[in-house]
Amino acid sequence: MKKSIGANTFLPGVPVLVVGSYDEQLKPNLMTCAWGGICCSVPPCINISLRKATYSYNNIVLNKAFTVNILFSDKIKEADYYGLVSGREYDKFAETGITPVKSDIVNAPYGREFPIVLECKLINSIEIGLHTEFIGEIMDIKVEDNLLDEQGRIDASKLEPILYLPGPKGYYSRGSYLGKGFEIGKSIIS
Amino acid sequence: MKKSIGANTFLPGVPVLVVGSYDEQLKPNLMTCAWGGICCSVPPCINISLRKATYSYNNIVLNKAFTVNILFSDKIKEADYYGLVSGREYDKFAETGITPVKSDIVNAPYGREFPIVLECKLINSIEIGLHTEFIGEIMDIKVEDNLLDEQGRIDASKLEPILYLPGPKGYYSRGSYLGKGFEIGKSIIS
Repeated sequence: MKKSIGANTFLPGVPVLVVGSYDEQLKPNLMTCAWGGICCSVPPCINISLRKATYSYNNIVLNKAFTVNILFSDKIKEADYYGLVSGREYDKFAETGITPVKSDIVNAPYGREFPIVLECKLINSIEIGLHTEFIGEIMDIKVEDNLLDEQGRIDASKLEPILYLPGPKGYYSRGSYLGKGFEIGKSIIS
Repeated sequence: MKKSIGANTFLPGVPVLVVGSYDEQLKPNLMTCAWGGICCSVPPCINISLRKATYSYNNIVLNKAFTVNILFSDKIKEADYYGLVSGREYDKFAETGITPVKSDIVNAPYGREFPIVLECKLINSIEIGLHTEFIGEIMDIKVEDNLLDEQGRIDASKLEPILYLPGPKGYYSRGSYLGKGFEIGKSIIS
């Protein structure tokens, strides 16, 4: 039987997105965001929701650009740290020994040591409530070459992403392969 | 070294959301959506992106309501199937032996056999490109009572969610616990 747990923000696993942006002095910043995901296929777009009070909010409005950095489980402490403190008080790149690299496409920095980065141009924003949602067009994705197969495609077996569980507030790794998308369900079609 | 893989829709694991809606004859429908996530904490909101061509798109515009059903890995075939065929041609509840239940809060159905459901009222929508993003306020979440602990909170250890990997198009389970959110990164704060 189902029980009501009230109006909450819960999904059983969301991607952990580390957003890179510059302030007006081109100081690079990183901020962890769990409220975000892909929101359009053509053009390819990603949304991230931030509170107006954050340093990154102002940076993104200023530059109309951001990066989304993907960290693997070896950087779990860093991923949490980037969401704990503000770029107003800390140089989060320096404090974690990450090298800021300016994107060659958009005016935003990413971390050289992070395995995957999405370079995004702000194309829309929506005021929702406590959070503002930014929609970024994904202009390019850059991936460490050891994560690519011989055809230059991402090798799923080499990814070790971090997933976040709102509610219990836990970080988790990805588990085992369950099946092929747009394939495994064909057996049900009558 | 990083290599460009071009402008794509990629994140290393996104939640699989099964959207419930009614058509004008109150025929219930289910559709799998991988483009979505939490987008605001106050009020609690979730976004889902759908193509205008889908049956569910019209249903959501009509009723200004939808549910988000969470399926576990025992329903991996069904999760894929709901994204393979259209509600115009199939009764997807009946074909998969799922019982439609009308939400007592919004004008949308959910599946009795699914473990978790978010009941959502449409509060905004944004045209992006091929996809339209719907923003739903989460009015309530209903959870099977065997997934709750003695305090009535979701027991993370009992969740077996399905995650989707765009690009390689694979479904995955959730893996092992990596640490506590808003806690594990404190050791870095200087």
